Amino acid sequence: MSCHLTFSSIGLLGFGAFGRLVAAHLAPHLPCLVHDPALVPGTALPQGATATSLSEAAGCDLVILAMAVADMAAACRAIAPHLRPATVVADVGSVKLGPAAIMRAHLPAHVGLVGTHPLFGPQSARDGIAGRKIAICPIRGKAHLPVAAFLRARLGLRVIITTPEAHDREAATVQGLTHLIAQALHRMAPLPSRMTTTSFDLLIQAADMVRHDPPGVLAAIESANPFAAPVRAEFQALIAGLDRAYAAPD
Amino acid sequence: MSCHLTFSSIGLLGFGAFGRLVAAHLAPHLPCLVHDPALVPGTALPQGATATSLSEAAGCDLVILAMAVADMAAACRAIAPHLRPATVVADVGSVKLGPAAIMRAHLPAHVGLVGTHPLFGPQSARDGIAGRKIAICPIRGKAHLPVAAFLRARLGLRVIITTPEAHDREAATVQGLTHLIAQALHRMAPLPSRMTTTSFDLLIQAADMVRHDPPGVLAAIESANPFAAPVRAEFQALIAGLDRAYAAPD
Repeated sequence: MSCHLTFSSIGLLGFGAFGRLVAAHLAPHLPCLVHDPALVPGTALPQGATATSLSEAAGCDLVILAMAVADMAAACRAIAPHLRPATVVADVGSVKLGPAAIMRAHLPAHVGLVGTHPLFGPQSARDGIAGRKIAICPIRGKAHLPVAAFLRARLGLRVIITTPEAHDREAATVQGLTHLIAQALHRMAPLPSRMTTTSFDLLIQAADMVRHDPPGVLAAIESANPFAAPVRAEFQALIAGLDRAYAAPD
Repeated sequence: MSCHLTFSSIGLLGFGAFGRLVAAHLAPHLPCLVHDPALVPGTALPQGATATSLSEAAGCDLVILAMAVADMAAACRAIAPHLRPATVVADVGSVKLGPAAIMRAHLPAHVGLVGTHPLFGPQSARDGIAGRKIAICPIRGKAHLPVAAFLRARLGLRVIITTPEAHDREAATVQGLTHLIAQALHRMAPLPSRMTTTSFDLLIQAADMVRHDPPGVLAAIESANPFAAPVRAEFQALIAGLDRAYAAPD
């Protein structure tokens, strides 16, 4: 598995917002066979991919799971009988400990496992993905090596090799706080747009970038990441302390 | 007072971070006489201004108050006997209701009063101030007209005419929330810097931009603005509600 630096075809399970982004960037390089319960097999997809059956998608030598964490165990059980030896299975979720455990538990020992988290989305990838970051977690075997090589060489991504736990600890702050603040700001709408400062404009730009993320992404970031709740608690305690100090200045 | 579109000299009271910024941008256009208790009169200042006595600074036809709100009443009482008829006095604070009341109470009826709030600071003005925004509040007389004309024509600023109350309501969100979030984030340092997303990078950029604002600016924004506490309370309640929902997803 570690001797081939690329793959011959990609099976993509799930065609939501992120599945479409994956297809758009991988189909120019390799045949991309997509399975999603909402798609009729044989349909040509706008991103240059083709809709196919579950078993055909699972028969590719790189299989990508692009669904909500809550649906991942069922998907793993469904594809397991169709996976060939030396296949590499990778997920693309915003949390890594949970999917790693699910893939280990439900996928056969003869396939390699890799956790990936592209640190960009449909909004931030608008002007292309070259130079963008992706976190890669080795889960089983050396499957991360050809995946990382492919992502670097073909897509120009900046690959960060890490562990599921280290990933989730950082993501709890990076994404957990950003989405929390963004969701709170959206609920305060309409926000001022005329008398603004540069720093407020940047804050709103950050919030707008993640406001259209689907509920599954928010669930992964805030609920499935075991380190997100403590980070939110620390942020809340700091805000409350600052508020008390501002309300009663010396 | 409304017939002259410009001024012959500027008296600047206060030479902190913001006073220095004011001097740097006004001294190229007009003689800028600075009084600050920390400066020896006669000293040539780096920004092309000159240190002078309180009475000489107050004798200019445009007098700018660039000190913390807490020091403004004492400064007004000190300059009042030296102000000539038709002089325009303007403050540059981040809150407008308080300074408007202080200037009305402590400055003689024969001077015009204007509240100003440049919506930029030493950080955001690094690459120049042309095109940046400034809020202008008429307080007494038509003094805001020549001030606005000067700021538009000489400095290229975008002038937003408003009232102290409307200003403070908007600033409570624009600056109150930005500084609150920034202060909380700074207290969570060290923050992740490697595995970051574009939206998190923007959030950090926003926070870094205001992190060096002096305590007086923070006090004006969070404590002197009467609308800041309710905005902070709304933000806290939203964050707490989101946290509860994320902790116990369906």
